[in-house]
Amino acid sequence: MGKDLKQAALDYHALPTPGKVRVIPTKPCTTQQELALAYSPGVAEPVRAIARDPEAVYRYTAKGNLVAVITNGTAVLGLGKVGALASKPVMEGKAVLFKHFADIDVFDIEVSAPSVESFIETVANIAPTFGGINLEDIGAPDCFVIEQTLAERLDIPVFHDDQHGTAVIVAAGLLNAAELQGKRLEDARIVCLGAGAAGIASMRLLIALGAKRERMLLVDTKGVVHKGRSDLSSYKREFAQDTDRRTLLDALRDADVFIGVSAADLVTPDMLKAMGPRPVVFALANPDPEVLPELAHATRGDLIMATGRTDYPNQINNVLGFPYIFRGALDVRARRIDQAMCLAAVRAVASLAREPVPPEVLRAYHLDRLEFGRDYIIPKPLDPRLLKVIPAAVARAAIESGVARSSYPEHYAKYGT
Amino acid sequence: MGKDLKQAALDYHALPTPGKVRVIPTKPCTTQQELALAYSPGVAEPVRAIARDPEAVYRYTAKGNLVAVITNGTAVLGLGKVGALASKPVMEGKAVLFKHFADIDVFDIEVSAPSVESFIETVANIAPTFGGINLEDIGAPDCFVIEQTLAERLDIPVFHDDQHGTAVIVAAGLLNAAELQGKRLEDARIVCLGAGAAGIASMRLLIALGAKRERMLLVDTKGVVHKGRSDLSSYKREFAQDTDRRTLLDALRDADVFIGVSAADLVTPDMLKAMGPRPVVFALANPDPEVLPELAHATRGDLIMATGRTDYPNQINNVLGFPYIFRGALDVRARRIDQAMCLAAVRAVASLAREPVPPEVLRAYHLDRLEFGRDYIIPKPLDPRLLKVIPAAVARAAIESGVARSSYPEHYAKYGT
Repeated sequence: MGKDLKQAALDYHALPTPGKVRVIPTKPCTTQQELALAYSPGVAEPVRAIARDPEAVYRYTAKGNLVAVITNGTAVLGLGKVGALASKPVMEGKAVLFKHFADIDVFDIEVSAPSVESFIETVANIAPTFGGINLEDIGAPDCFVIEQTLAERLDIPVFHDDQHGTAVIVAAGLLNAAELQGKRLEDARIVCLGAGAAGIASMRLLIALGAKRERMLLVDTKGVVHKGRSDLSSYKREFAQDTDRRTLLDALRDADVFIGVSAADLVTPDMLKAMGPRPVVFALANPDPEVLPELAHATRGDLIMATGRTDYPNQINNVLGFPYIFRGALDVRARRIDQAMCLAAVRAVASLAREPVPPEVLRAYHLDRLEFGRDYIIPKPLDPRLLKVIPAAVARAAIESGVARSSYPEHYAKYGT
Repeated sequence: MGKDLKQAALDYHALPTPGKVRVIPTKPCTTQQELALAYSPGVAEPVRAIARDPEAVYRYTAKGNLVAVITNGTAVLGLGKVGALASKPVMEGKAVLFKHFADIDVFDIEVSAPSVESFIETVANIAPTFGGINLEDIGAPDCFVIEQTLAERLDIPVFHDDQHGTAVIVAAGLLNAAELQGKRLEDARIVCLGAGAAGIASMRLLIALGAKRERMLLVDTKGVVHKGRSDLSSYKREFAQDTDRRTLLDALRDADVFIGVSAADLVTPDMLKAMGPRPVVFALANPDPEVLPELAHATRGDLIMATGRTDYPNQINNVLGFPYIFRGALDVRARRIDQAMCLAAVRAVASLAREPVPPEVLRAYHLDRLEFGRDYIIPKPLDPRLLKVIPAAVARAAIESGVARSSYPEHYAKYGT
């Protein structure tokens, strides 16, 4: 970012009042009579109703539309372990996105816990407050055990967005890119650079979509994840191959797909040239990708390229996923967000990119045209149709999975899959 | 409450949307440019600023105006141990009051913890999120150790409203009532019925105001708290007397002041008659007081009476305290809310009742007149002057105590004590 943009970002956060969110009453509460309904003595009635029937909490409180965005500040943006306090602007930002795109209320909760166990205990203890929990910017490998333990323990959705949110959008983009390049996921040789939350979860989801584990290579800071290594977490070991490839260049030889969730400039022109014909290159490191689109396209003309950036085509952006996945899950009061629901989201996102783009989306991006193809493999974040198709698909999947506690909302019917 | 009022209370909570609060962005966030400031990449700047200087969190996030209202659901209203989930309407109600009276944002947090230690750990772990913590509806004696431990551990105000909020308003009302009855706190024989959070804290604060411990009698469900009892918590033992009085009637003989924070109808006409001349009777059990004002006034004509109810004169209501005490504490970024700040609030509330009542307050209550005296010993909750005088007094006391981290706000100057 330039100096002006940096100052603009600081001013945006500081003025006219500090921060980005506030809490307001949804009911009239100025007269004595209204306050007597909002608090004592009126409030005793919903309390008694919930004490009798816990489900009534969804009728009389904000719980059902309230998501906690929770972090421990260990893997914040590309900035690393900045701690609970410094992560607060990011979590408030996530709250803004949830609200803007899916009208979901968010309490951002920054947790400073002395251990993974203490963090888990804390989140489990405050869970009655919320209709769902979005874990955010928690470093690997702790994020895996944290999410799994909480999901098993709680009866509300627990979703680590850096894993599944990223995976859903990567998979949706890749479904489309692979088809455009004439490749099948089943046959594709896939290289993933970065073995953290996003990398592991993306590979897992691609396998669920048909990709073959034996054709995947995971690469971390020490090189290819192979069976001869003794330094692997159980999560990396899941993807360890019996191979003599060692470097990223080795790994990329004849590869069909590169997915980078690592750091800036790690992919060179030589590496791109080593890839197989018509490759797919997702360079998702933020803000600076593993290779810039200009360089990639100059190196070879037959690739499809995506990044995490707003200022290039094909932005792989979690905001296409999490607001709508939670919207669908909350609307059928899902007990969890399972893989079937994620896969439904993948297909809904991928399909939407193939539909004609409505004029308001073109206007929002100052574009004359936008058509499914190598420069438009994934919908744009400001596309209002996302809110129509993704929640409906996710809700339907939740009902089919048996994790929904309420029925398919009537207003979804017209978008039903 | 009548059946109609009960249904009105349920409807108020359920319609048109469930609950009473929502979270909204305070900054523009609809265009791609605005979203790039609110989230990635712009948000990295305030993150870096806070990582460098933790104090910057007050400049770039909502923390400084954000209070957590936290409960474990063990002593909710007069309803007892209803649990975390069923306490949610009350905590949302508290959020509404904080916002309405002092423009403070509140996240209500309902905690289901397996132990007191786990509850404390949970609150401490999420504390970086907040500028202050209001503990609510937590049963005695756990509430004492919870508040004390958290206050010592954290560098933000931790305030158990059922203790100190109640104590501040009781003390303010009593200062005025005692003066009207021609009594000095130093000489008064005070009987407190109810030895929970509110009772213990009120007695402690009255001692700080000059009342004598040896002239106090605490009465719990087993009768007078005396030195011969072996069933006393350390908190009750603080007030155990060497006395042969055993019943509430014994205790009230020749008493100057009765403070009831217990349950309905425990005080009989005989007990009132047993009290000394010109007694002060605070029957604060909610919704039904220890004795109804009609009965009390019919029994003897020389008493001053207060209740917790809206529909009688002299309502001892916490809402006169907590919004403004936190407002003052947040505005000077106090590290804690200490006794000096509570005493400053007591004096500010008591003084305000002696000032002429402005017309808008009379209009809000449909009254022709309201003058300091036996039927007006304490300000009315809808009095807008509360927001002017109490925060200023509390902030001043915080600065004098050395617990303030920022200077006296300029806009307070005209209300300064």
